[in-house]
Amino acid sequence: MKRAVILLSGGLDSTTCLAIARKQGFDLFALTVNYGQRHVFELQSAKNVALSLDIEKHSVLDIDLAQFGGSALTDDIEVPKDRVESEMANIPATYVPARNTVLLSVALARAETLDSFDIFIGVNALDYSGYPDCRPEYIESFERTANLATKAGVSGKNFHIHTPLINMTKAEIIKSGTKLGVDYGLTFSCYDPQETGAPCGHCDACILRLKGFKEAGIPDPLNYPD
Amino acid sequence: MKRAVILLSGGLDSTTCLAIARKQGFDLFALTVNYGQRHVFELQSAKNVALSLDIEKHSVLDIDLAQFGGSALTDDIEVPKDRVESEMANIPATYVPARNTVLLSVALARAETLDSFDIFIGVNALDYSGYPDCRPEYIESFERTANLATKAGVSGKNFHIHTPLINMTKAEIIKSGTKLGVDYGLTFSCYDPQETGAPCGHCDACILRLKGFKEAGIPDPLNYPD
Repeated sequence: MKRAVILLSGGLDSTTCLAIARKQGFDLFALTVNYGQRHVFELQSAKNVALSLDIEKHSVLDIDLAQFGGSALTDDIEVPKDRVESEMANIPATYVPARNTVLLSVALARAETLDSFDIFIGVNALDYSGYPDCRPEYIESFERTANLATKAGVSGKNFHIHTPLINMTKAEIIKSGTKLGVDYGLTFSCYDPQETGAPCGHCDACILRLKGFKEAGIPDPLNYPD
Repeated sequence: MKRAVILLSGGLDSTTCLAIARKQGFDLFALTVNYGQRHVFELQSAKNVALSLDIEKHSVLDIDLAQFGGSALTDDIEVPKDRVESEMANIPATYVPARNTVLLSVALARAETLDSFDIFIGVNALDYSGYPDCRPEYIESFERTANLATKAGVSGKNFHIHTPLINMTKAEIIKSGTKLGVDYGLTFSCYDPQETGAPCGHCDACILRLKGFKEAGIPDPLNYPD
């Protein structure tokens, strides 16, 4: 079995990505980064999700990007609420500076120590918030950089950044994960959860999630406030 | 004054790079990453060096790459000693998987929160240990990736990764830093220091450093074992 590293946040997308990677037969090493996100319930979700899909090899790495601030996810900046889809093309305050580059760089470090050339990330460029580091051209550029960066890369082998969700709608992602046995009740998407851990229902992540479940014709197992 | 982020390890190269960036008139934000290196004396050197060059803005970020292992700098693997120069083209056990990609990615995150588009890194592709992530083609690729990755980059501005040392010999680096008032007695290069913090004198970093001082005709202020 080929080894692969998968970035797992515990959200809907990365969890579905994990189920797809497992189905493809990889020996998976999950990696969750605690970057100081205020939606820290994500971390517990990541652990629960990994266990539910029988992923025993799961590392959690702390990188305190919150000390730099600059994002509604790590700093005292308001999370935008009730944005309509046409607004989502504008990069919102929840953008975390260089987040996916930080995540992919540590996944690359992890992969190289495992003699693995396969990295999975659940980015999506359709039903998303306009983050630049979710676009195919960014992923391709990171892949080229990875091959120049590493001892493994210069040895002639090539890293492959797998993005199975990149061209899927949220509804397609949910249908696909449901077929693969994902329990979406364990996943966590909200950027601004209530103290109880309940999702807000109004941030971009909740809006896109709710729309996806609706379009998929599948009930979202999470409890939203009325 | 334009803001710039500078990666500072406390070694000879990054310290000289800092002095050059200061001379160029940037408002500098130093960033040191504690990645679990066994030569942890580096971290104290980074702090001393920053203070000696009047750099008040200095962040230290923990990223525990040691939990992944895979390098003589972070794991229980022997540091190669007394390699001759012809051997240094082979990437040694001190190579840390994807290190510069991890360092540059967090420097990019830091820069974006500061509205800075300038990042300095003291990589050197002449008197070096053959690390792939010190080569110009790698740096150029990371720069392209950074511009695709970020909100700042897609806004039309361009990040610039400054590598003032990349084509200098170690002797030229030392002469250049000496002219700029660098106190090399504060810097730390050894990969395998003694318990007292004294350099070993036999690892690649010590060999390249000693050769550089010798060729520059300047005494190395550090004390080496006999």
